Amino acid sequence: MNVKPTVKSDIEIAQQSPMKPIIEIAEKLGINEDDLELFGRYKAKLTTESLKKIETKKSGKIILVTSINPTPAGEGKSTVTVGLGDAFTKIGKKAIIAMREPSLGPTMGVKGGATGGGYSQVLPMEDINLHFTGDLHAITTANNALAAFIDNHLQQGNQLQIDQRRIVWKRALDINDRALRKIVIGLGGPVQGVPREDGFDITVASEIMAVLCLATDLQNLKERLGRMVVAYNFDKQPVTVADLGVQGALTMLLKEAVKPNLVQTIEHTPAFIHGGPFANIAHGCNSVIATKTASKLADYVITEGGFGADLGAEKFLHIKARSAGIKPEAVVIVATIRALKMHGGVPKNDLGREDVHALTIGYSNLKKHIETIQSFGLPFVVAINRFITDTENEVNMLVDLCKQENIPVSLTEVWEKGGAGGVDLAHKLLDVIEKAESNFQPLYDLSDPLEDKILTIAQKVYGAEKVEFSPKAKKQLQDFDGFGWGHLPICMAKTQYSLSDDPTKLGRPTDFTITIRELKPSIGAGFIVALTGEVMTMPGLPKLPAALKMDVDENGKAIGLF
Amino acid sequence: MNVKPTVKSDIEIAQQSPMKPIIEIAEKLGINEDDLELFGRYKAKLTTESLKKIETKKSGKIILVTSINPTPAGEGKSTVTVGLGDAFTKIGKKAIIAMREPSLGPTMGVKGGATGGGYSQVLPMEDINLHFTGDLHAITTANNALAAFIDNHLQQGNQLQIDQRRIVWKRALDINDRALRKIVIGLGGPVQGVPREDGFDITVASEIMAVLCLATDLQNLKERLGRMVVAYNFDKQPVTVADLGVQGALTMLLKEAVKPNLVQTIEHTPAFIHGGPFANIAHGCNSVIATKTASKLADYVITEGGFGADLGAEKFLHIKARSAGIKPEAVVIVATIRALKMHGGVPKNDLGREDVHALTIGYSNLKKHIETIQSFGLPFVVAINRFITDTENEVNMLVDLCKQENIPVSLTEVWEKGGAGGVDLAHKLLDVIEKAESNFQPLYDLSDPLEDKILTIAQKVYGAEKVEFSPKAKKQLQDFDGFGWGHLPICMAKTQYSLSDDPTKLGRPTDFTITIRELKPSIGAGFIVALTGEVMTMPGLPKLPAALKMDVDENGKAIGLF
Repeated sequence: MNVKPTVKSDIEIAQQSPMKPIIEIAEKLGINEDDLELFGRYKAKLTTESLKKIETKKSGKIILVTSINPTPAGEGKSTVTVGLGDAFTKIGKKAIIAMREPSLGPTMGVKGGATGGGYSQVLPMEDINLHFTGDLHAITTANNALAAFIDNHLQQGNQLQIDQRRIVWKRALDINDRALRKIVIGLGGPVQGVPREDGFDITVASEIMAVLCLATDLQNLKERLGRMVVAYNFDKQPVTVADLGVQGALTMLLKEAVKPNLVQTIEHTPAFIHGGPFANIAHGCNSVIATKTASKLADYVITEGGFGADLGAEKFLHIKARSAGIKPEAVVIVATIRALKMHGGVPKNDLGREDVHALTIGYSNLKKHIETIQSFGLPFVVAINRFITDTENEVNMLVDLCKQENIPVSLTEVWEKGGAGGVDLAHKLLDVIEKAESNFQPLYDLSDPLEDKILTIAQKVYGAEKVEFSPKAKKQLQDFDGFGWGHLPICMAKTQYSLSDDPTKLGRPTDFTITIRELKPSIGAGFIVALTGEVMTMPGLPKLPAALKMDVDENGKAIGLF
Repeated sequence: MNVKPTVKSDIEIAQQSPMKPIIEIAEKLGINEDDLELFGRYKAKLTTESLKKIETKKSGKIILVTSINPTPAGEGKSTVTVGLGDAFTKIGKKAIIAMREPSLGPTMGVKGGATGGGYSQVLPMEDINLHFTGDLHAITTANNALAAFIDNHLQQGNQLQIDQRRIVWKRALDINDRALRKIVIGLGGPVQGVPREDGFDITVASEIMAVLCLATDLQNLKERLGRMVVAYNFDKQPVTVADLGVQGALTMLLKEAVKPNLVQTIEHTPAFIHGGPFANIAHGCNSVIATKTASKLADYVITEGGFGADLGAEKFLHIKARSAGIKPEAVVIVATIRALKMHGGVPKNDLGREDVHALTIGYSNLKKHIETIQSFGLPFVVAINRFITDTENEVNMLVDLCKQENIPVSLTEVWEKGGAGGVDLAHKLLDVIEKAESNFQPLYDLSDPLEDKILTIAQKVYGAEKVEFSPKAKKQLQDFDGFGWGHLPICMAKTQYSLSDDPTKLGRPTDFTITIRELKPSIGAGFIVALTGEVMTMPGLPKLPAALKMDVDENGKAIGLF
């Protein structure tokens, strides 16, 4: 997030930006009113019928926005995504943005949304950051209905012989609530359920979110939901949703949530905001349905993956793109001077001070991500997302470093200038798309053993020397093969702050080992999560939550949201 | 619910009934498109501006639908409410229905919705019974955000000195989930919160639901939310939401949920479906905002209260009407032959067999409710909601019993015939409204001591001889007076199946005692709940939940919902 003390806040800019009726935005895409399910004047879902109508249309080009390993404040990847979409529109191209939906938990906890920033925002930002069209609520409901069905099964005779010590399905709320991480349920005697350990994740960490985002249609959603593993029985065999017979009910609860949401940017570029899984224990990309729909309606789709390229781009390419049968034509690697200085050794609270030397050291982090994208066979442009604290010397140095190595680079100022601040980036992208061919190829084959897939990611994407598996993980590798899950791709859960699994190792670490502590099957989503450390799936609130400043004004408008 | 084996199911009838665009329905009420926030083509919320516009209009007449003490299957009160609205439309009157929103929990658990039945249903029934416009999800979110703020306060130093053994705010989900009734949270060590006992209620039992339903506008909503008591401190003094400073944030989360939802019946009568608090620990009526809005837009508003007249009508009159400054012009008391036979001693699974004698005995239950409505000074009509199993002898007997005592009575067949089946009832209502004057007066004054208010309800409404208070309740009466809560009305939590607090005492019991086990302050809602026994605030699922039969068809339509 850029901090500009003398300018308007994001919510002020957003609330003062006039929107066009979403019907008008849709019309320009060839979608008429009958194909929309309106949510007020400025939000809409596309009907199932309208999705079917466009299925056979030619697909536009997909551009993936990713970044270096970020600072805790983030590098403005969403802001660049929005700004780039507006830039394409500005130069007369038909572009659509496809992004993730924000989660309410962090919104109430710490300042910062997921709808872009400054003059590169999607609107209505208030609604999108609050309940939006109810997708996350539907996922919460389906997640917890499933949990209730499991506990009811235990209570009513446990025909499936579920081992209550081995129930892996957790409950979920779209709230930051550390007190729900580890709980005991079913207390109070025989009519109040079977006592057992349990816990809540934040909704975006629910496998249902990942399933919804990877589903290609309603039928595929139901199949995926049916495959989800909820527990193991006393013979240590997996028990699935299909075994419980509730995949139909869960699909019914999600039948609206699976339809993509259409909104617009400040500059009226259409944007699909749909789905938002965690980028650690899930793949961190918006829905396949939204990305594909966007590609049928525009010549250029600008989309992003969560975290840095080592996680977000890797998962977009190995999981989402492969599963959906899509491929990006080019990649934008977002870098900031601040983050590169941090990678060069500057402490977090000193990033505002000029340090060209640190920048040249930290550049190694960017370099590694460039090499990774190249290894996938994809053209790319580096986008320097400019901050007000960046000095001329620093910016010139970074541009020079890139140019010395013939790396296409663009200075973007989309926060301050909206689409106009991204026109150069858009032109450079068109240039690389035209010149360099996209020869996208995954780094591993699905038929490789699980262990080898993990090793490939660790060595080729992170630059690790080797991978070590805990005894538990080794046992799981064996079990999972036995369950027939060996063909699934890997979803790495690793810190986003370092290429290694140690968040303090900045820059471009070498000679390090990636330790796989545990594996987690997400069979509905269709991947095996490899956990390299403790992954927080239910955040906590800070001492003074952002909620303390939130309110409504006399007209019912949100105050203090950002 | 009527069971008609050879006819269509409710969902079949609903899905085959063509709806008009909600814009058309609104237009007839003088509401134009700009005053609507559309949710698809057939649902809309009214904007805050539109509510302000009509504030000063003359109010129409409110008709309250209530019933005798029901059988577990219910007496079709919602069905009569919908059918009566259609009947008024049919005879050329401008009528609007104002009803409660269904809860998802029971929908997934046991067959049966809250959108009427047969040809007297509100549409789109699928949507209304599933996520509708997200009101319940917003309440769930606000409820659990508040819980997270409380636990975060404990974790971050506990400045308010909250006694973690005396936190009365529970978490909530719109799900039937017995395993969450009694839980322990905050386990796992010092960074995972403060361990304590907790539990989940179903969302409709959250005080926030009652607050939303009694709020007159957004500002009033915020004040009520601020007054809610969440815990007691180590000095045993109440701690409120305002003490935590999060009433603004909670209001922001509810700013859309507080707007009333407009839909239509099968016969295109407008209906507001908004809010749905429990009828035991809360007052069981739809929102004040919806009822008042309806009264500004129509000449006749048909609305209902949960459970029988001893609970639903009493609370409508003492809590909702008094707090909102409204009054009903007449009351409909719904009775069924089946329920009266049950009150006359026929076992539950034998109610299909003719038993005129049992009917004449069970009639005493209806008689008591009639007397209660008379004691409030309100005109009324008894509506016999006809079932296919009712015999001519039985129907004639019941009609005769009423006529002998000059009780206005109407035979309704709204399930089968829609509005046409309620035309006689509508005419009889117009008749009593014209002839008998509504001299509405509450049975107790707000200035009466809490104890006396409870006694008044027990004696005058239930026919009890006396009231006994447990030692705990006695202590609470004293404490609550000390906290300044003595002026609040009472919300009785009692079984709906009997006039007494013992569900097995059918008919019209006499010489009984009402035992008050415990009191519960709902200061935001503005009442003191008096609990006469264990009240279930989190239902469980049956062995074979209705969810097992639910699914979606190839067009994305719900299957097996009812």
